[in-house]
Amino acid sequence: MNKTLEAGCPFCDAEIGEATFAESNHFRAVYNISPILPGHSLVIPKWHIGSLLELGDEELGEMMVFAREVVRTLLTAFHARAFDWTIQEGAEAGQTVPHLHLHLLPRMEKDLPHPGGWYPLLQDNITAEAIDSEGRLRISKEEMDQIVRHLRGAWRNNS
Amino acid sequence: MNKTLEAGCPFCDAEIGEATFAESNHFRAVYNISPILPGHSLVIPKWHIGSLLELGDEELGEMMVFAREVVRTLLTAFHARAFDWTIQEGAEAGQTVPHLHLHLLPRMEKDLPHPGGWYPLLQDNITAEAIDSEGRLRISKEEMDQIVRHLRGAWRNNS
Repeated sequence: MNKTLEAGCPFCDAEIGEATFAESNHFRAVYNISPILPGHSLVIPKWHIGSLLELGDEELGEMMVFAREVVRTLLTAFHARAFDWTIQEGAEAGQTVPHLHLHLLPRMEKDLPHPGGWYPLLQDNITAEAIDSEGRLRISKEEMDQIVRHLRGAWRNNS
Repeated sequence: MNKTLEAGCPFCDAEIGEATFAESNHFRAVYNISPILPGHSLVIPKWHIGSLLELGDEELGEMMVFAREVVRTLLTAFHARAFDWTIQEGAEAGQTVPHLHLHLLPRMEKDLPHPGGWYPLLQDNITAEAIDSEGRLRISKEEMDQIVRHLRGAWRNNS
């Protein structure tokens, strides 16, 4: 894996550590600064990998096995049994932050008027512009810290 | 892996062979009988596994490495470079066929008015009821056979 960070990439920024609640060798799980639903998290490489196609087979396996453990943690922490597991790769698919990321969302009965209703909301949203343009609320620093602490505890209990 | 088939499950039915264009040990790639966009395919276990959480780590790795090869084939066959990669697990997430399936969709610029626009259309759709209720067209047997032949060739060239 190419272990470089990209200046200006929100997923490479040192501040991503504050949103991180679980790690494997090459990947981290972060809570989304602008969650569509409670529990909306991302699994991302620790370095600036643009595409799922760039990962070696072993790295891909590591990412997915790790992501599944993250799902188990999210289901426990948010008392859910259903989830969405989604990568949008490429601008044509709606990706705007060109750093590989897998969206994980625990789902609850009737959490949205239509089960698929979250997806159109899912434009990459970690940048202020995107948030502003979507009119979506960014959670506060306090709320982020509280959720991340909760998830770190759930991750430790799960492991 | 529990190697049983479920009566009445469209993904366990013998006819699924006609939609299959690629295989690994435990998984197959099938073309969607009611594609949301050209190329809309599914990766499914060959046996009736309900949940991503049921797979062993090695099986999960096999599924995802296989799925990525399928993505490469779809991108080549449909002249795309972007894709969606999505599992909806559980009824709360909109899943209606309780047999694990990963949706893979090659994406093109402006293929939909909004990049996320396909997702609300994505109710499980291999059953006639679901198709009728969504008002979506099922492709003809001739079209299915033609696309599957095309994808089998692309898969062989890719491997």
